[in-house]
Amino acid sequence: MLHILYIIAITAEAMTAALSAGRRNMDWVGVCIIAWVTALGGGTIRNILLNHYPMTWVEHPEYLLVTAGGALFAAVLASVMKRLKILFLYLDALGLVVFTIIGCQLAEQLQLPVLIVLLSGMITGCAGGVLRDVLCNDIPLLFRKEVYGSVSIVTGGVYVGIIYLGYGDQWATFTAIAIGLALRILAIKYEWQMPKFVYQDDWEK
Amino acid sequence: MLHILYIIAITAEAMTAALSAGRRNMDWVGVCIIAWVTALGGGTIRNILLNHYPMTWVEHPEYLLVTAGGALFAAVLASVMKRLKILFLYLDALGLVVFTIIGCQLAEQLQLPVLIVLLSGMITGCAGGVLRDVLCNDIPLLFRKEVYGSVSIVTGGVYVGIIYLGYGDQWATFTAIAIGLALRILAIKYEWQMPKFVYQDDWEK
Amino acid sequence: MLHILYIIAITAEAMTAALSAGRRNMDWVGVCIIAWVTALGGGTIRNILLNHYPMTWVEHPEYLLVTAGGALFAAVLASVMKRLKILFLYLDALGLVVFTIIGCQLAEQLQLPVLIVLLSGMITGCAGGVLRDVLCNDIPLLFRKEVYGSVSIVTGGVYVGIIYLGYGDQWATFTAIAIGLALRILAIKYEWQMPKFVYQDDWEK
Repeated sequence: MLHILYIIAITAEAMTAALSAGRRNMDWVGVCIIAWVTALGGGTIRNILLNHYPMTWVEHPEYLLVTAGGALFAAVLASVMKRLKILFLYLDALGLVVFTIIGCQLAEQLQLPVLIVLLSGMITGCAGGVLRDVLCNDIPLLFRKEVYGSVSIVTGGVYVGIIYLGYGDQWATFTAIAIGLALRILAIKYEWQMPKFVYQDDWEK
Repeated sequence: MLHILYIIAITAEAMTAALSAGRRNMDWVGVCIIAWVTALGGGTIRNILLNHYPMTWVEHPEYLLVTAGGALFAAVLASVMKRLKILFLYLDALGLVVFTIIGCQLAEQLQLPVLIVLLSGMITGCAGGVLRDVLCNDIPLLFRKEVYGSVSIVTGGVYVGIIYLGYGDQWATFTAIAIGLALRILAIKYEWQMPKFVYQDDWEK
Repeated sequence: MLHILYIIAITAEAMTAALSAGRRNMDWVGVCIIAWVTALGGGTIRNILLNHYPMTWVEHPEYLLVTAGGALFAAVLASVMKRLKILFLYLDALGLVVFTIIGCQLAEQLQLPVLIVLLSGMITGCAGGVLRDVLCNDIPLLFRKEVYGSVSIVTGGVYVGIIYLGYGDQWATFTAIAIGLALRILAIKYEWQMPKFVYQDDWEK
């Protein structure tokens, strides 16, 4: 079940990433690369940091095809995408939550400390979007808008908490998806924002 | 033979990278780092993703000296470089093609799926320039101008195709270099461009 | 002793990084991530390049807590930080020197060539700041201002030189810290700059 959600999520992430690439006037190679980096980059960075090989997309090159296909499809049908904006925001929320749980699961299996389990979830959930913004030469959105990072931490916390209480992986996954999705959708709806640290100074470190 | 072309290519890449660093007013450490990242970064990222160690430049530290030397030389003689612009554009094309083939060869030896072989070639050929542009705070050129990415894919495709037809590595290398170089030089000459996906919208994901 | 200096240095780096994050109006997740990347990113990149696992912060997750705590503390007390500017510039200099030596030590233990030992020191000392600047969408300061990179190379050179002369690790560490710190503090005081390579041209590679 988580696997099917994963496929849906990477495809949706790739499709919205294509629009970011379009905003920067990229050609079809650029669109594919931005889509891959956004959809698969979080898990890739996590695997590098935890020394977990081979990469998912090396074992399953079909993920590269699915995401590239989705991205090029989105580029061709950009005007349709625009009307489906809300649907894709929800799919993006699904991706955040699903990626986070997959990241936590992997770190759990490697028997890493709980702090690293949470961090592994957050990297898997958020790093793809950060890479996309770096390559598109934006300040990563993650760090500024949206409660994106906070939702990832709560999702991971719920998942880990339920596992530690002994209710098993299935309950933990289900509850964490439900709570994470609800939080993110409420955040979109009511435009929640985390308090920001605003600092103006000429201090050049 | 490929080895000699590789040395020529990394030196030429380092020299043109020095000019990018100069455009950003970097000091000599900055010039060296941008040169290393541009000339050796593609292979380094590929090795990280495919878990292939040690890095080329750890085994052959002399590559670091050659590229740093070339870069500092180019910085001193920037006005001469300017007049040799066409030569360096051709050497850069050589680099793209040679790096791509080396990347494909490595993934072939690791017996990875054909899609990963092509991707390995593209990462080796193109990622150095992307890293350079990220560090110089530009939108990566690869994604916007030039048929750079497409030439890399065609070069890799020709190489892999001939290997699969059973003509052996030497024929494949030779033919792929010839076709890749021809494509790239024609692209420079006639200012070919891939169709671009231009998308203007206030959609903030 | 080096270990205690390391803890002080990563905390100080995290605290000044928090101000960079504040200048970009990041929320608390952004502040933590920028702090982690700045304080622990150099060693992480070095470990990835040298294939040295597990990461320091996977073995010692308490470093993540210390640096995040320091960063959030600095965000709350930003106005106090401002008055301690000189103190933090000195602590930053300490970080540069200590990280460089730790990087050299690791590469020494892995019996890598001397050029890689120096590079390992420079990456450990400087890459965190580069990552911070890339994520904050700045041109890395390292490459433009300050004699940062040069101080790291001198520190590494002194350390390696004394080891090679056979005076043992303790003397090498002590002398390299003293010379590196002195150089950096003099550079701050007298606003030393390395000669810059300034190049203006319309050459688009």
